[in-house]
Formats: sequence, C-alpha cells, structure tokens
Amino acid sequence: MAYFTDINKINFEGAKSINPYAFKYYNPEEVVGGKTMEEYLRFAVAYWHTFTMDGSDPFGAGTMVRPWDKYSGMDLAKARVEAAFELFEKLGVPYFCFHDVDIAPEGNTLRETNKNLDTIVAMIKDYMKDSKTKLLWNTANNFTHPRFIHGAASSSSADIFAFSAAKVKKGLEIGKELGGENYVFWGGREGYETLLNTDMKLELDNLGRFFHMAVDYAKEIGFDAQFLIEPKPKEPTTHQYDFDVATGYAFLQRYDLQDHFKFNIEANHATLAGHTFEHELHYARVNGMLGSVDANQGDPLLGWDTDEFPTDLYSTTLAMYEILKNGGLGKGGLNFDAKVRRGSFEPEDLFHAHIAGMDSFAAGLKVAQKLLDDKVLEDVVENRYKSYTEGIGQEIVNGTTDFRKLEEHVLDKTEFKHQSGRLEQIKATINQYLLQTFADQ
Amino acid sequence: MAYFTDINKINFEGAKSINPYAFKYYNPEEVVGGKTMEEYLRFAVAYWHTFTMDGSDPFGAGTMVRPWDKYSGMDLAKARVEAAFELFEKLGVPYFCFHDVDIAPEGNTLRETNKNLDTIVAMIKDYMKDSKTKLLWNTANNFTHPRFIHGAASSSSADIFAFSAAKVKKGLEIGKELGGENYVFWGGREGYETLLNTDMKLELDNLGRFFHMAVDYAKEIGFDAQFLIEPKPKEPTTHQYDFDVATGYAFLQRYDLQDHFKFNIEANHATLAGHTFEHELHYARVNGMLGSVDANQGDPLLGWDTDEFPTDLYSTTLAMYEILKNGGLGKGGLNFDAKVRRGSFEPEDLFHAHIAGMDSFAAGLKVAQKLLDDKVLEDVVENRYKSYTEGIGQEIVNGTTDFRKLEEHVLDKTEFKHQSGRLEQIKATINQYLLQTFADQ
Amino acid sequence: MAYFTDINKINFEGAKSINPYAFKYYNPEEVVGGKTMEEYLRFAVAYWHTFTMDGSDPFGAGTMVRPWDKYSGMDLAKARVEAAFELFEKLGVPYFCFHDVDIAPEGNTLRETNKNLDTIVAMIKDYMKDSKTKLLWNTANNFTHPRFIHGAASSSSADIFAFSAAKVKKGLEIGKELGGENYVFWGGREGYETLLNTDMKLELDNLGRFFHMAVDYAKEIGFDAQFLIEPKPKEPTTHQYDFDVATGYAFLQRYDLQDHFKFNIEANHATLAGHTFEHELHYARVNGMLGSVDANQGDPLLGWDTDEFPTDLYSTTLAMYEILKNGGLGKGGLNFDAKVRRGSFEPEDLFHAHIAGMDSFAAGLKVAQKLLDDKVLEDVVENRYKSYTEGIGQEIVNGTTDFRKLEEHVLDKTEFKHQSGRLEQIKATINQYLLQTFADQ
Amino acid sequence: MAYFTDINKINFEGAKSINPYAFKYYNPEEVVGGKTMEEYLRFAVAYWHTFTMDGSDPFGAGTMVRPWDKYSGMDLAKARVEAAFELFEKLGVPYFCFHDVDIAPEGNTLRETNKNLDTIVAMIKDYMKDSKTKLLWNTANNFTHPRFIHGAASSSSADIFAFSAAKVKKGLEIGKELGGENYVFWGGREGYETLLNTDMKLELDNLGRFFHMAVDYAKEIGFDAQFLIEPKPKEPTTHQYDFDVATGYAFLQRYDLQDHFKFNIEANHATLAGHTFEHELHYARVNGMLGSVDANQGDPLLGWDTDEFPTDLYSTTLAMYEILKNGGLGKGGLNFDAKVRRGSFEPEDLFHAHIAGMDSFAAGLKVAQKLLDDKVLEDVVENRYKSYTEGIGQEIVNGTTDFRKLEEHVLDKTEFKHQSGRLEQIKATINQYLLQTFADQ
Repeated sequence: MAYFTDINKINFEGAKSINPYAFKYYNPEEVVGGKTMEEYLRFAVAYWHTFTMDGSDPFGAGTMVRPWDKYSGMDLAKARVEAAFELFEKLGVPYFCFHDVDIAPEGNTLRETNKNLDTIVAMIKDYMKDSKTKLLWNTANNFTHPRFIHGAASSSSADIFAFSAAKVKKGLEIGKELGGENYVFWGGREGYETLLNTDMKLELDNLGRFFHMAVDYAKEIGFDAQFLIEPKPKEPTTHQYDFDVATGYAFLQRYDLQDHFKFNIEANHATLAGHTFEHELHYARVNGMLGSVDANQGDPLLGWDTDEFPTDLYSTTLAMYEILKNGGLGKGGLNFDAKVRRGSFEPEDLFHAHIAGMDSFAAGLKVAQKLLDDKVLEDVVENRYKSYTEGIGQEIVNGTTDFRKLEEHVLDKTEFKHQSGRLEQIKATINQYLLQTFADQ
Repeated sequence: MAYFTDINKINFEGAKSINPYAFKYYNPEEVVGGKTMEEYLRFAVAYWHTFTMDGSDPFGAGTMVRPWDKYSGMDLAKARVEAAFELFEKLGVPYFCFHDVDIAPEGNTLRETNKNLDTIVAMIKDYMKDSKTKLLWNTANNFTHPRFIHGAASSSSADIFAFSAAKVKKGLEIGKELGGENYVFWGGREGYETLLNTDMKLELDNLGRFFHMAVDYAKEIGFDAQFLIEPKPKEPTTHQYDFDVATGYAFLQRYDLQDHFKFNIEANHATLAGHTFEHELHYARVNGMLGSVDANQGDPLLGWDTDEFPTDLYSTTLAMYEILKNGGLGKGGLNFDAKVRRGSFEPEDLFHAHIAGMDSFAAGLKVAQKLLDDKVLEDVVENRYKSYTEGIGQEIVNGTTDFRKLEEHVLDKTEFKHQSGRLEQIKATINQYLLQTFADQ
Repeated sequence: MAYFTDINKINFEGAKSINPYAFKYYNPEEVVGGKTMEEYLRFAVAYWHTFTMDGSDPFGAGTMVRPWDKYSGMDLAKARVEAAFELFEKLGVPYFCFHDVDIAPEGNTLRETNKNLDTIVAMIKDYMKDSKTKLLWNTANNFTHPRFIHGAASSSSADIFAFSAAKVKKGLEIGKELGGENYVFWGGREGYETLLNTDMKLELDNLGRFFHMAVDYAKEIGFDAQFLIEPKPKEPTTHQYDFDVATGYAFLQRYDLQDHFKFNIEANHATLAGHTFEHELHYARVNGMLGSVDANQGDPLLGWDTDEFPTDLYSTTLAMYEILKNGGLGKGGLNFDAKVRRGSFEPEDLFHAHIAGMDSFAAGLKVAQKLLDDKVLEDVVENRYKSYTEGIGQEIVNGTTDFRKLEEHVLDKTEFKHQSGRLEQIKATINQYLLQTFADQ
Repeated sequence: MAYFTDINKINFEGAKSINPYAFKYYNPEEVVGGKTMEEYLRFAVAYWHTFTMDGSDPFGAGTMVRPWDKYSGMDLAKARVEAAFELFEKLGVPYFCFHDVDIAPEGNTLRETNKNLDTIVAMIKDYMKDSKTKLLWNTANNFTHPRFIHGAASSSSADIFAFSAAKVKKGLEIGKELGGENYVFWGGREGYETLLNTDMKLELDNLGRFFHMAVDYAKEIGFDAQFLIEPKPKEPTTHQYDFDVATGYAFLQRYDLQDHFKFNIEANHATLAGHTFEHELHYARVNGMLGSVDANQGDPLLGWDTDEFPTDLYSTTLAMYEILKNGGLGKGGLNFDAKVRRGSFEPEDLFHAHIAGMDSFAAGLKVAQKLLDDKVLEDVVENRYKSYTEGIGQEIVNGTTDFRKLEEHVLDKTEFKHQSGRLEQIKATINQYLLQTFADQ
C-alpha cells in the first residue's frame, strides 16, 4: 500500500526517490568538514506533527487532508506506520521520533494501551528491518490526556504520578525494543498554572524522585539511551519547571542528576524563553550538556510556540556552527519538531516543508564549515582574549593570584587598552559568507 | 545644614518628623504576625536613585531639581551625605544601600578614587553614629565607566578583570568598615552583546574564579556579610549571565559557590526575565537561597527596566507572603531600587515616592499576614496534595517505591479522581482580603 | 429540567437565588453615581465560554465536566439553552451574547444550518419571555470551520466571501428576531499568516465592501443594532487587520464607515496589542467610538489570549472610570468573554468565576465613582492644563494663532515653569481609595 | 583638515574613495530594474548617530573615540560639519539628515540658538556646493531638553507648545534653505507617561492644530518638502500617539491632514510595535502613504530601540521588494537611523557599519528585483485571488452584489475548493534566491 501514490502521480519533485534533484543543498553523501552531510545532519521526522497533527488551532478546527483520514482506531495507527516509512524513504531521512500516543490509540486501561503499543511497536520494528531509518528518540506524552490536568510527575495527585511513571516505564521498554538512541522528557504539564495553589517544593522534589526512578529502571533493563530534558518556559502551563537550559541545569545539579541527563534544545522554546537558539546550544555545549536538537523556528513577534519548519539561514548557520564546535551531536540529531502551517494542508506540503528544513540546515552546515575553515570567528575570539594567555591574565586563569595582587596591578595604572568589538564588520562578513558560499562553487 | 528645609517650609506632610500621619499604612511599631512592621519591613533607601539619578533617559537630558545641584566634586559628595541622612531620618528608614561611585567621585587612578571613598566613608560612619539607619549592603559599580565596555569580571581584558577585583576588594573593606549586613554583586556588564565575538566558557570560568577570590578576601578580613547575586536577564547587555535566579543557581552549583551566596531579587528584573516577582522569591525560598529584595516594579508593557516605586498591592501582598513564609528576610531587607519618574522632578516627589512604596509594602504585609492567619492558601495547598501523605503517595515521598510498583498500582485502574484548582475562587478571595483588611479594622 | 440541580443540592452559595449574600460587592439595586449598579454594569454571559468551551488547549484535550455532556446534536443545543437560562437567572445577569455556531450545530449546507438555527432561536425567544436576560449582541463565527482557512470576508476565495456574507445576513436576522442591541464583528481570520502570498489591498477593500453590504442589509430589514468591531492584534492569524482600536478607526475612516460602527473593546486583546485596557477605552471614548466591552483579563507574561475572568481591581477600577466618564456604555455592556481555567473543570467553577468577575467590576465601579465624586484625577488634569484656558494657550485652542506669533512668544523667553507630574503620589492615592472605599462604609 | 586622516593611514578599505572595492555589493552605477543602484537606494547618513552619539546607555557612560572630541561649543559644531562631509564623500552617500540640535549648540534663548543654527547652516550650505550629498530631511529635536518633560506639541504647558512651534518654524526655514526634500516629525515626547494625569483629547487636538500650522507655514514660505510622520509605539514615553502607521493614519484622517503627510517608517519602531518592517511598509504603500524609510534593525528579544545598522538580508530584501512595488520612494530615501554598538567605539567602525548597511540593502535590492523579474510572489498572489476576476468574485469587486445574492450563491453549495498557501515552499524559494543570486553572476 502506498499512501503517497497520488503524490507520485503528480510527479512530486520533492520526493528524492522520484527526483534526485529535489534537494537544492542537501546531499547526504557530500563531505563537509570531514564527514558526510548525513553524518552531521542526523535529521529526524517528528511523528506527531507529520502523521497525527490536524491543523487545528485555538480558534479553528483541523484542516489537514491526509490519505489516512479514512481509517480509525488501530487501522489508523497501522496506516500511519505505512505512510511514515514511505515518507522516510522518499525524504531519505535517517531518523524518526515519537510519543507513545502518536503511534497507537489509548485503551480503557493502561494495560490495554500497552497492548495497542505492543502491536504497533512490533509493526514498526518490522518496517525498520527494511529501512535505513532508525529511532532517534521516543517519549511519553504525559500532557494531552485530561488526567494530566494538574501535572504528571509533578501532579498534585499521587495516582497520576504513578500513572506517569508507568507510561515512562513502557516508553523505556519501547525505546530499548526499537534501539532508540535517546529518551526525551518534555514536561508539558510539569509546572504551574498559579503559585496560589501550588506546592512547588514538593513538586520539584517529586520530579527529582521521578527522574532517579527512570534512571534506575533504564539501568535495570539495560537501556543505555542518552536521557534528555527538553526545556520550555511556558505553554501550556503558565510556568514550566524546565524554563530553559540553565534552569534545567540548576535542577539537575540540585537533585544530583547531572551525569544522567543532557538537553534536547528546541529553537522555538529558546526564543519563547528570551534566548536565541544559538545561546541555548552554546550554553549547553560549554557546560557539556548538549544532547540533541528540536529543529524548528518561532515567530519573534508571536508569543506562542509556532513550531515552524526551520528556514532562517542565519539561525541554521549559527546552530550548525555550535554543533560543529561540539564535534557533532553524538547520539543526538536534528528532529523536525515542526508542523506545516494550517494553510498548507495538502500532503505535498509535508514534502515541501521537510525539504525546506533539510536544505536550510544543509546550507547552514556549509556556511558554518566555511566560517570554521577560514577561522573567521575563531580568530576574532582568540585575538580578543589574548590578554589571558600571558602575565596577569594567565595568573587569573591559573588561579595563582588574588584580590591583593590584582589591586596592586591596577592601583596606579592610568591607561587601559580596549579593542573594538567590531560587531558590524563581523555581521557583514557573515553576510558575505552566506551570499558567496554557493557563488564560489 | 538642612537640605530639605524648603520642604519643611512648605510643610511637606510626607516627612514623618513633621507629620506623624504622613504614612497611611506604615507604622514601624505596629505588631503584625509577632514582629513589628519595622522588623519585617527592613526598608532601605537606594543612594543612586535618590541622590545621584538626574532623570535622564535615552532620549532626554536630566530633569531633576535637587538642592545639592549647586555643588560639584567632593563638595557634591558631602552635600549628598548630609541630605541623605536628613531624608533617612524624615522617612524613618532603617537601612540604605550604595555603589562606590554613588558616594564619591572617581579620581585619575584607583588610588585616588579610594582616597575619595575613604573621606566620604568616614563622613558616613560619623553620621551613622547619630542615626538609626544602617547599611543594608554596598556594592561596586563595575558597569558605568567606559573601561567596563566589554565586561568587568567577565571582561575580555585581563587588566579590567584586575581592576574589577580591586574595586570589589575596596567594596568589601568599606562594607566591613560601615557594618554592612550584605554585599551585592549585580553584573551589569557580565554578559555579552553578541555570541559572535564571545568566549562564554572563559568568561564564566573567570566569573567563578572572581567570586571565589571575593569569598576568600572577605574571610581574610573577617567581613561576614551575606554575599548576594542580583539576577537580571538583559540590559544593558544583550544577555546577562545572571539571567534569573535559576540561572544564577545553576552557576553557583557549577562553580561550587552555593554555600557562599544567596540572591538579591528585584521585582522588575523578574518580569523582564518572564517571571512574576513572587515566582523568583518562591523559587529562591524553596531552594534556601532567598537573601534580600530590590523592591520596585516594572511596566509589563515596556521592555526595559523602569525601576518604578512599588505600588501594586497584589505584588506587595504576594511578595510579603513569600517573605513571611521564609520567616522574614534574615540579614536581607527591602531596598527601594526605584526612581521617581522623569516627570516627578521635585524633591518633594522623593518623599511621595518612598511613602507610596513603604505604605504599599505595609498594606501588603497586613493582607499577607491575614491570609496566613486564616490559612487561606495553606489550606488549599494542604488539601490539594493530601494524596502524598498516605499510601502510594507516601511511598513516593519516602523513596520506597519504583517504576514497577507504580505501574502495578495503575495498570488496571479506570478511575482517577481530580479536584478543581479553583483559581477563580481563590482570586476572588484574595480580592476580598485586599478590600476588607482595612475595612474590618 | 434543571441542569444545575446538583449544584443546588450542594448548596452552592455562589448562586444568588439560593443565597443572596453570595455576591460580596455586586448588588444590582444599589445606586452608585445616580444609577443602579445593574444599569451601569450591563453584564453579559458569553455563551461560548460558559456553555460550549471544553477546556482543551493546544497541548491538551478537554477537561470540563458539564451536565449536558451526555447529549449531542440538536439535543445538546437544546440542553444548553435550558442550562443557560438557569445560570442567567441564578446569577441575575441582564444580558448574554453568542456566535451562531455556539447555539446550534452546523448542517451539511448553509440551508440546513439555518434551519437548525431557526429552531434554537425560537426556543431562546421563548425562554426570553420568562426571563429578564436580554441579548446584548450576537455574531457569526467565521473563523472555526476549515472553510475559513484563508479568511472570511478577506478570504482569497470569492465563494468564502459569499459564504461569510450569508452567515452574517442570517446573524443580522437573528439579532433582529431576538432584539439584540448590538451586532459584533470579530475578524478571527481577517488578517494574514504571511505577507508573502497576500494581496492586502484587495483584502482590505473587500472588507470595506463587506461592511457596507452589512450596513445596507441591516437597514433593509430594519435592524437598528449598533455595529461593533472587536479589535485583536494577532492569534489565530499572524497579523489581524483590526489590530487595535486605532487601526480599526483608520480603516473605518478610510472606507467611510465611521458613522456606522463603534468598537467592542476586549481587555486581553488590548494587552496583546501592547496597550493597557484603559488606553483602548480612553482612545475610543475621546474619539466617540466606545461601544461595548469584552470584560476579561490576560496574563502580561503570556503571549496569547488567556481570556481570564477579570479580577484585577486596578483594571476594573480604571475601566469603570472610563465608562463613567463616557456616561455609561449606552447600548453596550460588559460581556464576560472569559473562560474558567482548564483546571477549574467543575460546573461550580462557572459560578465562582462569574461572581469573581461581577464583584470585581462592582468594586471597581464604587472606587471609580468615589474618585470622581472627590474629583481626584479631574482636579489633577484641570490644574495641569490650565495654561490652555488663557493667553497664548487659549489662542492655540481657539485656532487664532500661528507659527509666527508663537515664535514671538518664546524667542527671548528664558524661564519656563514646569509642574511635577506627581505620578507616585497619584498612585498612592488610588491605593488609598482602593483600600479604604469599603473601610469607610 | 581631514578628520579621517588616521583612517586613511591605516588604509581603511571601507572608504570607497580609497579603495573602490570596499563595497562588496553596492555599486552606485550598477543598473538594477531599470535604474541605477544609487537612484533606488537613496542612502542618507544620520548626523546624530554618526557625529554626536557618544555610546552611552542607561547604565554606562560614553565610549566613542572621535577625532572631534577635543573641540567644544561652536568649534565642535564646525568640526563635525567638516568630518561629516569627509565621511559623506568617502562613503559616496547621496543624502544626510539631521535634527536642529545635532548641528549647533543651543543658546540661552531661542534667538541665540537660531543664530548658532544660522552660522552652521551657512557652513553646511557652503560644503554642499562642492558635494554631491544633499539633504534628505531635517527635523526639530523636541524631546531631549528638559523643557519637553511633559511633551512638545502635546505638552501640558502652552508655553512649550509655543516653543515647539517656534523650533519647527525654524526647522522649516532651514529645510528650505538647504533644499531638503522632506521634513520629518518624530514625536519623542508626544504621548503620555500615564493616563492618570493626561488629557488625551486636548493633546491630540493640539497635535492636530500644530500640524495644520506647520502645513500653513511651509506653504507661506514656499517650502514644498514632503511632510513625514515617524511612528513609534513607546520609548521614551510609555505610550506614543504615533504608535504605528495605522495609528498615525487614523490621526491624519481624523484631523483632515492625510493629504499633507506621509510616513517615515523605521524598522526598529515597527518591531517594537509588534509588526514586521515589511508590514509597515506594505500597509503604508497600499494606502498611498509610504514616504521614506529609517533603515535600521532591532533585536527581537530586546524591548527597546537598539537602532542597529541593518544587516538582516531577509529584512532588506523584503523592504526593497515593497519599495520596488512602490516604484521607488519618490522624494524619500533610506536613512541610516542606526548607531554603532557601544563596543564598536573606533572611527573605523563608522565605516564598517555604513558599508554593512549599504551592502545589505544593495544585496536586498538585487534579490528583490530578481524575485520580481521572475514574478515569484506575484504569480503566487495572482493565482490565489483569481476567483475575484470572474463570476461572483468580480461582482463583489465591482460592487454589483449584495447579501441576498451572495446567500443565494452558497445556500445549497456543498463543495468549496481551497488552495494550499504553500508558505514552506515559498520560504524555501526565497532562500534559494538569497543563496543563488550572487552565485549565478
């Protein structure tokens, strides 16, 4: 069964298996900076946005037209698996990601739900045998169902804490079964609507306990995926406990979890928190906590999570710069946690959107590598901080000085040399790299 | 010399020494919740906003009319000290705070600057003998002078790191000399304008080294003030390293400084970071890191630090609620890091503004205490989380369960009980406390 | 049939018919400023939030538990009418508001939909005979259905423009049938997702044409309701054409519609546009365009429409101040375009929430009237601008001067007198009115 | 005297007169879309940011190092004129802009100020004889001096209204003397700090009167410049009356001024108001009100006016697209209302920054023209709205239909065709144009 038959018929040039020239910049085999593009750009399709999202928004019903709309229940779940692997193949993506509820319908009890999951997981495993596409990460959706009304691991109800734990337990088992390389925690309801009725201390302590139990269980079953926390400042809650990477890092240290977790950083969540995407990547990187990436973009003039496919070349360039400086993402990847706009309702748009995102990151990779090859920013930084490589600067870095010696150094000093930060020149240079990288080829 | 003589002549009813009924709600001797108002509301006048701020803004020159405008240099510095203690007395405030540059002009070398400081510090110490007003905290202004163009302790120049260290060294000595109860670090230039030319890792490491040296030096000279970091997300820099309390807490843990520091939390900095004031207080409190408060307010529709005098009674009530739950602020206090509006340019406005702020916190204290007396919110919270005091909930809290047992608990469970969060009712109740607290008296 | 029987049984003290003391501040018969509270506070229940909203959000399914959940189709529509009039009576509200789709399900064709509407409208009309509750306004929901994917009157499809027109035609007929006092246009999809595929000029021209046709048709059928535009800056679209009152006013003047429309101003839409609620009310008032009010509030730290029940007493006081200065709202009213929080899922919360909102506006009315009685702000304003009542100021206002004469007036002038704006004192005074209004009674 | 001698010595490659290859993309003689680049890109240097701005910010003193720092008073004013024309020549810019206070110091009376202005204006006129650089616009700075504390034309003091009028009178005379092509009004203090003490109606009426007097005086002296209002939503005031283009347009229509004014649109002011730059340009264009442009950019994560040099190629491309669709800017131009960062304190940075901005707009022009040549967006739009060119759509546009006929058209219609908006594909296409425009050359 080929769900995208219609697309084939209209000779959709976005599908690589049909037209190898559909991608303008992404070429999996092309070597950039010593690795192939595919090795650096470990793209993943997000099951939810691509196969279950219907285009509804707070003021509007779903608009998406999908070949699998005619099915329901487990049939719908199976149809989506087939469609998924067809799309994976046509796009040539190496990874995918999912929440439990994305792949199978919930039953009346968790036992029933798990049975449904088992059926679909077996089917997915079967499909994976004939596919190059692997599981980047899976996760438990502990936020959509009304039972999570007051949180999941931070719920005011102990039963819901237990239910959340059971869902993550199953998630870890599924991750192991499918060879998932990471396991993600996004706390969509781990936060508060109001402080007025909230016991934040108990909720944070419980979150800490929950994560320790998850670490223990993964160890018990021999699932060695990298655990990832995905920060978001707000929405749906008024305040989420994993506000941003720094907040998550404070929490992990406070509860002695920092060795078991890294971060899954989403561009749109970064901007909602008041940071640039590259800030969050950089901060995580220099603290050794950069795990994986949710590759999307927001609209800086809108105050909610728009989850747009990433097309801003400045952003993809600076993100890839951080990733290259990190020596790649290790087990992590670039998951398109992005949805086609409500007005882009045709199946064809799924291809346009993924190609737009993949090409944008491929172009960003090449520009970033060229910046690195020419040491554009590295030379700037090296030159700016060179005073720390000698004399008093070296003593500061080596920890061989103190306030008394430092005072002595400056007490009668009248001249201090400063360098211009040259930001305008640097930005112009980056523009030239953007406009010329493909011109020089 | 009495600078505020003219105000006396116009019989300024805002000055307590003239008219004891100037305050509508603040009465230092009144007992609320077992302590006097003065003990809970450890108000401090901010030297900079009240004695040096001139009303200029990015598009306008100074507007403030001040009796000491006719002086300059050290004479100006001395005139301000006299005026300050007159205002402290008239307002009856127990504390004040200052930056080094607020109290004395800078010289051509740090040695000269320190000499100027010594003169004024001696004068202040002398005035303090006859005054009940004490030093809540002092700090070093390591952000205004052009030398801090690229940061202070996080400067790209080692000489500037040294200069910053020397200024803090002097600040610690002054704090000790004047009996300061805390010492504050606000990193106005500790952050970056752009990541493109920044070595964040080196800058953060240097900040860590700097704080350790400060801790060591305070110990060396026997200055036992509480060290406080004051978070702010941005402005003047694009991104400041102490973005919010959580970010500061991550940093302190990362550099093993958490036992030496607490936080000085400013309301307007909280809102600029996307948090409520009470969130920052609460988060610091439950992590044992609540030190002191910069009592002001921002305008939620404006994106910069407006540093308004605090008059929002919801905010003062919820802030005092957190402070009461914390058992007070310990060594900390409520510093009016607030400036009269540019259009409120007369000396008289300084009194109106401080009285507005003091009355707002006094009213907030009384409403908060009444909420506590009646266990309004505490009953809500106790009831909401009672499932953690028995059965599976108790096991979660006690750490005597795991994912397997938790799964067992819910695998076949079909019914889960939820409670309404009742936020609308709670808000109506708080309104009633606000409107009735002074009606019932 | 009494849907709220269960609530009666639990002796819900929020229902006025059960317990006359449920309201703390709202008393419909109490006279304030020469009118009864009910005359000034023309409260309306919003049918959609109270009877159809299910508590879903972009990351979560519905949570609301409602007595009518067991019904579907036309039975559900009828059950809601019964419940609605029961709630109207228990709250004692004088008005309600609805969209077409709130009261009846859509059919396969517009003809079928209209037939459904006719049935329910007849039922409502019947209920209204025995009720004091009247129709403040109705409107057409031209945004939820997928057909409005690219707009309604500003759709890129002429068929959808026609469909939208037909729905408004029916809406006007229903309004006339039920004696609606106003008719509202909220352009939830009248805007754009992106300029890149948008012909803004054609869309604005079409909007202008649409409104003229609506004016003509209302005239034709003798429906003399006040037409109202409800501004909102964004959400669901990226940019809505009725961004704020000023933008709507520019449009109305440009298309010569200013005599046929006023504005329905929503508090939360104001803050999303970067304005205070009172700014929008004030701007509309001084331009003679203040029609009606959607009484709710947003969260200034969240970037989407939270539609909270209004409880901020500063906001209700300043809103009522504007309304009192306007001599009341005329045909307009205070519609609670507000929803209980997702966590407040019980029917009882509907009462708590409305009572919270009604009490907040009643308290605001009394504080505002007291400010007016004492001419607190009016004296400030009169004094500030008195230079325009004489000399050169009077000539400016009278239009009897010009640039030459004005230059002459100042060319050699060296002294200019300024008054302090006294904002801090004014804010303290407002706090005193807030805290004392109910204390002095 | 050559102020930039030092720069010449270091062989500053940014100065075109020294090195014709300094610009990477800007070539004044190159023909794009039928005109030379210089004809389309009517660049102007902003006198204030380039010659008087010192790098101070609300938390820091000035940092800029300028060759003219050694002068003061009228000597400083003269030195700046010399430096200005040297920089104009080296950059090859066709225009400049200034406020009165930028070019000459204020005296003790307006008469003295005007005398100073006369001296400098004569000097500028002299320099203009030997220069190709002309005056794009001048304006009066009616916001910096403390006298404008409560506004200028909207001041609460009639004397200040008069003073503001006298300054604009002089400004119009200077504009005429120097052949200015436009005259700008930016209302930096025309707005309010708080509604609580403001008579908005009187202030708006006075603004209307002021503008009419300005129109009359310009006519009287035969100064036929285009009058321009520059919208800004806030800063320095809490709310400015010219919030955005739409608000300004509402005002102009309300006071019957729409035929005498157009808008000077600033990118950073647009984003502060919640709009994209291209939105403001587009809205003004389709309403026939696009006058001139303040070419800069803001930081979407910061809430104040950062006035950065424009380097975002998406923004310059879409801005030039609007300008090309407008048939150019007529009398208007692209004024760099932009300042080098505080950390870019060397004179050399002034060149880097202007070149960065000019190159960014030149590249944007070429990409935009290529999009137009290939009808990329025009075809999308034409196709999307084609239903308005026939049948019912044509009747709507022609005004030959009404609600009855439109209802008839859809009453029994069951199928409605929709087109995907294809936003993702469009964005990918724009990226390709960006990356390939210079590759294909």
